[in-house]
Formats: sequence, C-alpha cells, structure tokens
Amino acid sequence: MIHPVPPGTRDVLPDEMRELRALSGSLHATFDRAGFGEVWTPALEYEEVLRRGDERAAAGFRLFDDRGHVLALRSDATIPIARLVANRYATEPAPLRLCYFAHAYRAVERGSGQAREFLQGGIELIGVGGAEGAAEVIALIVEALSEAGLNRHRIGLGDGMLYRTLLANAGVSDEDAQPLLESLWRRDLVGLEVRIDRLGLTGSARDALVAVPALRGGREVLAKVPGPAAENLSAVHELLAERGVADRVIFDLGLLRDLGYYTGTIFEVYDPAVAFALGGGGRYDELLGRFGPSRPACGAGLDIQRVHVAQIEEERGT
Amino acid sequence: MIHPVPPGTRDVLPDEMRELRALSGSLHATFDRAGFGEVWTPALEYEEVLRRGDERAAAGFRLFDDRGHVLALRSDATIPIARLVANRYATEPAPLRLCYFAHAYRAVERGSGQAREFLQGGIELIGVGGAEGAAEVIALIVEALSEAGLNRHRIGLGDGMLYRTLLANAGVSDEDAQPLLESLWRRDLVGLEVRIDRLGLTGSARDALVAVPALRGGREVLAKVPGPAAENLSAVHELLAERGVADRVIFDLGLLRDLGYYTGTIFEVYDPAVAFALGGGGRYDELLGRFGPSRPACGAGLDIQRVHVAQIEEERGT
Repeated sequence: MIHPVPPGTRDVLPDEMRELRALSGSLHATFDRAGFGEVWTPALEYEEVLRRGDERAAAGFRLFDDRGHVLALRSDATIPIARLVANRYATEPAPLRLCYFAHAYRAVERGSGQAREFLQGGIELIGVGGAEGAAEVIALIVEALSEAGLNRHRIGLGDGMLYRTLLANAGVSDEDAQPLLESLWRRDLVGLEVRIDRLGLTGSARDALVAVPALRGGREVLAKVPGPAAENLSAVHELLAERGVADRVIFDLGLLRDLGYYTGTIFEVYDPAVAFALGGGGRYDELLGRFGPSRPACGAGLDIQRVHVAQIEEERGT
Repeated sequence: MIHPVPPGTRDVLPDEMRELRALSGSLHATFDRAGFGEVWTPALEYEEVLRRGDERAAAGFRLFDDRGHVLALRSDATIPIARLVANRYATEPAPLRLCYFAHAYRAVERGSGQAREFLQGGIELIGVGGAEGAAEVIALIVEALSEAGLNRHRIGLGDGMLYRTLLANAGVSDEDAQPLLESLWRRDLVGLEVRIDRLGLTGSARDALVAVPALRGGREVLAKVPGPAAENLSAVHELLAERGVADRVIFDLGLLRDLGYYTGTIFEVYDPAVAFALGGGGRYDELLGRFGPSRPACGAGLDIQRVHVAQIEEERGT
C-alpha cells in the first residue's frame, strides 16, 4: 500500500539529503563570508502582505486562520524579506546583506513536472543601487556555485524594463502588452510574433519587438538596442569583468522573470549539464517602498535541488 | 508601518539564526555519528494520511489543492516518517535509524504564547522494540544535548499506557476516560480529582487514580505501581544506567504526551533553566502498522528554539 504525497512534493532519503545538506552548507558558508547574514521568515504569511509585494505572489496555497484571515504559504523569499526589512530595519541606513535557506510553495500546472515545494537558497542586497549592486549579487552567486563544485555555470543577463520600454515606445497599451509579456516569459517567440502582428504594428517598431527577444550572445548584442538598458547592462558587465567573472555572462535580451517586482537588471543561472535554470534574480528597486522606506535592492535565489542535479551531472562529465 | 506576521510565527534575525544553525548542526552531527540518516518529507501532506496516523494530527492548518483534495501542514515529523517508511522501506528488515530537521505547524490556543510554526529536530528508531529501543533513543537525546553544550537537562520518564490501564482496571469506560486523560495531559490534577469523584469511584481504585499522577522521583516510585509499566520503566532505567545516563532520569508517572500514537515508554526533556519541556518522545509500536508492515518503533523530537533558549540561560548561569 503506497500512501501518496501531494503532486509536486517529494520525500528525500538519507543519501540525497546528505548531499543537499553539504551543498546548502557550502552555499551558506560563501554567503556568510561575504557578510550576508541568514534570516528566517515564517512559511505562512498574511495573503495581503504577499499581494502587497506582487499581485500573483499569493496565488498558490491559501488557507484561513481561526479568525478568518487569509494566510498563504510563501511563494518566494524576497517578498517576506522585504516585509522583514520594513519591520525590523526601517531606520538602518547602511546596506543590508541578508541570505536565506527555506522552502517556497507554488501552485504549478499539473503535469508540468515542476515542484510545488522547493528549497531555495539566496541572497538579498538592500541599499546598493544600479549596476554596482547587481554585479555584487551576480559575482557572489557565481562564486558560491564555484565553491560548491560547479565549473560550467553561466549567467544569462538581461533587463526587465527593456521589452516593456519597447512596447511603450511602440504605443502598445498596458492591457495589450500583458499577453505579449506572457508569451515572452514562456519563451514562446512564435506566439509572440503572432500577437505582435495582431496588433497591426509595422515598420521598425514591429521589427524591434520581434527581433530583440532573440538577441543572445556577447557584448555585440548590446549595440543593437541602444538606450538605458544597454548602458546598464554594459556597466554591469564591466563590473563583472573587474570581479573576474565576465566570461560567465551571456546577454539574453529576451529574458523576463516570473514575479512582477523586478526592475532593471535581471538574470538567470544556467549549467550546460541540465536543461533548466538553476535560479536567478535581479534588481527590485520598488519592492521595499511597498512595505516601508524606499530603497534600491537586488537579490538572487538558487533552487538547491536543481543545483544538486547539475553538480551530479557535472561530476558524471555529462 | 508594521506588517504583522501570523500569531505564533516569527522572524529570526541573523544573530539568532547563526546560533540556531550551529545548534542544529551540532544535533545533526551527533545523530549522524550514531547512524541516523536525515530525511525530508513535504510540509504538505494529504489530510487523510495524517489522520491515519492520529485523528488529531490534521487539526491544524488545512487547505484544498486544485483538485479539491484536502491537504494539511504537518503537525509533527513522526507520522510523515511512518508514511515514508511504509512507502520506501517496507521490505527493509534491519532496524532503520532516521533523523529530521523541519518545521511543524499546529493551531494552538490564542494567547497561549505557543508557537504555531516551530523547528523540530529529532530521531526515529524503527524495528528495535521494548526497553532497548527506548533506551537507545533517550541516551542519544541526552548525548546530543550534552554535545550541544547543555549540562543540566533531565529526562522525565513515564509510561503512556499506565494511566489508561488504571482507568480500565477501575472499570471506567473509554468515553468517561477521555476527559480525565485531557486533565492529566494538561497537568490539571485538581480538575482530574474532581472528575474522578464525579464518576463515583471509591476505595483503592479511586486512590490510585488520584495518587499515581503525582508520583515523581527516583526508582522508589516504581514500587508504588507494580505491573508491566513499572517493569518496563525499570528495564529502561537499567539500560540507561549501562549507558551512563540514568542519573538524568526522573520518573514521572503522570506523564502523558499529546499525540495519541504513543504506546509504552514516553518521556519529556527538561532543563532547570527554563519552565517548558525542550521536547520528548516515546514508543509508538502501533503507528507503522497503520501505513504498512507493523514494526516496533521509538522516537524523540526537540524544539530547537526552546533548546536554544535553555542553552542561553545555562550560559548565563540562571
């Protein structure tokens, strides 16, 4: 008789658990050495707190407490940490460096094979703006993965505002833009082009909306999208070069992240040994202001089990 | 503007988190050296799985998944591990030694000051019966706390069947017994005596039901309750003496644990520096059989944050 666990959740047995504990310990040690202090936030938050961070952040597992308040399981660590910073560090002027290791919960599509419960480890850098903050976060993630034994990981680097700006410049309304952003987020470039043409766009505006999402590669792709996004990405790249990790970067101008709080620089972490992103992050300069004093911020989270799979595949020499 | 967290949950900031991580790491290292392999089970289980372990285990936080199944947040680690053992180790004949570090969730009374989300670390010893299994578990808990720097911890040792047997011998029906067991579990000995008298009991049966819950102390208290429970506790004590930890034991014949799956030996962990139990456990010889092949078992869980408070208080010399 087998007693099932909910879809998208799983048991972890001792051999795997030993490796996951070692991996988490290694990542934590790197974050700790870099001055990122670990915090814990409750797995349960008031739904309205998560929704204040992002409308879709409480779309997962919701329940009522004994007073009828709606609670939700955290779907990421960043929104709860933004709440924590507003509650506990509102008057702290210096940059804050925080890290976390915690499970997050998402209601994913059935059959997608995606986890509903997944262990995340990550960092949040509060109070350091622009390219400088992004470069510190990206370089530390690269270092943490190297320390954990990964050798081939890459950073896909993009700008969360780039495509939104192109849409605004082309005169596309926010309402019309939404399904296009959905297609882009799903990497459905064929569907994206169909939707662009349905809007009746022509000329250079149409061409840019179709071409930019496919732009991937070295610094040369930045020349094809002049403007603030390219300047920002160029600055991040220079700072990463100073930190000796620029060779890890692949510019990916079609990159979008799923949670809506990102502003400016965004990135994902890849490993050629596996087909999925190991994690990602970006700047979220407007999130803190939804809970307390406005502060620039940048963060990154890694899916520990995915990093573990990449570790194994690299060791196998796949 | 303060954004509240749900009652009974809390944020943990870096200074405390660093100590909690060190404490968990120390406990884990002791469990690991003793051959207890760490497992992880999902925080969400099907309600019917938890209820199979104990009727009240799913009384806490419940929610629906997208197919209308009722899920619940685990309220302890033992029932999910019993499920895991049935699913993954059903044909494993040798004793299994497992440990865990995970948060559990309980709907507690408002204003009780108790945590709704609490971090537990513990062990489960499957397939070693009787006093031998209980002594191994108790001795390892004592050792783990000593390794973590606690010096004054004590084990309150009782038998989960003792009072139930006294009630049955006195002819008290299961229905009438329930409120008495509730009073005993709450350590409400005055209320217990009132309820006993309401049942119209007299003579030695009444006297035993009133007197036994107050019996605490050294081996001498066992002489006052001859029978299988006293023989069992005496055997556990002898095995703990062989392991050099018998001086930690205080017999507590009124001890009851809150979850209904315990059979035989039960215990709680105390520290004179703090007023609350740091954890506890006991034999649960009938739990595995509710999920798969019947096997004797014994386990113990520690509330990591309470152990941390005791650590601090001991260091302060309180």
